[in-house]
Amino acid sequence: MKLLRVGPVGQERPAVLDGAGNLREISEAEIDGAFFASGGVARVREALERDELPVLEAEGLRIGAPIARPGKIVCVGLNYRDHAEETNAAIPAEPIIFMKAPNTIVGPDDEVLIPRDSVKTDWEVELAVVIGETARYVETHEEALSKIAGYAISNDVSEREFQLERGGQWDKGKSCETFNPLGPWLVTADEIADPQSLGLRLWVDGAQFQNGDTKNMIFTVAEIVRYLSRFMVLEPGDLINTGTPAGVALGLPGKPYLRAGQIVELEIDGLGSQRQTVGQA
Amino acid sequence: MKLLRVGPVGQERPAVLDGAGNLREISEAEIDGAFFASGGVARVREALERDELPVLEAEGLRIGAPIARPGKIVCVGLNYRDHAEETNAAIPAEPIIFMKAPNTIVGPDDEVLIPRDSVKTDWEVELAVVIGETARYVETHEEALSKIAGYAISNDVSEREFQLERGGQWDKGKSCETFNPLGPWLVTADEIADPQSLGLRLWVDGAQFQNGDTKNMIFTVAEIVRYLSRFMVLEPGDLINTGTPAGVALGLPGKPYLRAGQIVELEIDGLGSQRQTVGQA
Repeated sequence: MKLLRVGPVGQERPAVLDGAGNLREISEAEIDGAFFASGGVARVREALERDELPVLEAEGLRIGAPIARPGKIVCVGLNYRDHAEETNAAIPAEPIIFMKAPNTIVGPDDEVLIPRDSVKTDWEVELAVVIGETARYVETHEEALSKIAGYAISNDVSEREFQLERGGQWDKGKSCETFNPLGPWLVTADEIADPQSLGLRLWVDGAQFQNGDTKNMIFTVAEIVRYLSRFMVLEPGDLINTGTPAGVALGLPGKPYLRAGQIVELEIDGLGSQRQTVGQA
Repeated sequence: MKLLRVGPVGQERPAVLDGAGNLREISEAEIDGAFFASGGVARVREALERDELPVLEAEGLRIGAPIARPGKIVCVGLNYRDHAEETNAAIPAEPIIFMKAPNTIVGPDDEVLIPRDSVKTDWEVELAVVIGETARYVETHEEALSKIAGYAISNDVSEREFQLERGGQWDKGKSCETFNPLGPWLVTADEIADPQSLGLRLWVDGAQFQNGDTKNMIFTVAEIVRYLSRFMVLEPGDLINTGTPAGVALGLPGKPYLRAGQIVELEIDGLGSQRQTVGQA
């Protein structure tokens, strides 16, 4: 099932794509932690099966992020061997964790703003995981997978000077406004047979820079959820960005960082595609 | 004015302390971003001045965190010269920023849990800043101070092995459940004549370990808010922990990390006091 949120910024309403690709309205207040915790996915599925949901006119509708603002965004760093190598970083012995401010979330086709004083704004296509049930001290990978509501595309936009050259911790280069395009859909976990077998691709102005596969993750989605739950309580509606494969500007010859006016396109198998215009804050 | 939230966990209701020290009920849904953004502080002040607010029986009431769960918690690392020295770290040239999961917030006297597999859980008394107005690309210290709703005590509880020895970024040791006791009150900014002249103190089992003063911050509260607003959009209800002075277990001879059963007490001039029992997750 593909859940989404459509409408103007700040006025998005929940919807679902039916099997024929039609957009249908759902009678839920939001797609958020309360929705997942109260069995919202099953409610929508049943309503869809009973053919109760009115069709929405999709023409001209903006697509927002598929979930409301999350309680937290947790990111895994250097989780693809080729990306660790391109940035001259050691292969991590256990997951590197950092955080992104939750108000960085925007729609999949919204403008991405280069921050003021930035010269090193970079892209990162990532498999995003949305938590469906509270995860605390999870022991097994099976249990970890059962905590996942679904998957989406994330662009973990990053400012490399802020992240790496301005003292201390990476978070400084990860939390600028518009730095987390998400969507178009939340694809429920039952539709993704194997989260470790998804191609991820990214283009800038039509030239492909990233072409990875989640089979090359150092730590699998199940291990990430299990591991994180030992260090923090994951809650319904939380978002995890699981790392990016090789091909970011930081690792490329000439370091072709983003400039205003460029177009960034992302896609992941089964999760749709994104298209952002780059602007200037 | 001293705003607070009282009642059982998850059922806290907003209240205010009047000039005589009486607890009074306020007719606000929450003390959160919407409260601050809609002029809630002025509304409560006016209701208090008109003597409209019913007295609440304080006896036996739990005090919760004085604000609802924030949109984000941003922390400044190594912001006191003596603390940087005790941890053998260089004095930072610009603020070190990291984040804490927003669901770490608990009441000022709630239990703090040592995480499973932890042997290095540590304390940090800090001046907490609560944002009252959106702050984005703030230019001046005067403007920065105008964005602050008020101040509170934070215990930025930290697991040093998770933070420093488990790969990568500090966030891993900062986000465990119960790791951010906050309160008892949010003291509105007008009552704190100078945020750079507040004594901070912390005791464990009656022995004093921290005895600092915000005058020794490397980066002032105004500079922190101005600086952060260049890297992320600060929103009403967001929380900033502004760093801890010397005297944490990590920097002490014998490194006396917390053990279950201990009592941690914190106080900051004008902001009240906290008292936590240490438990085991």
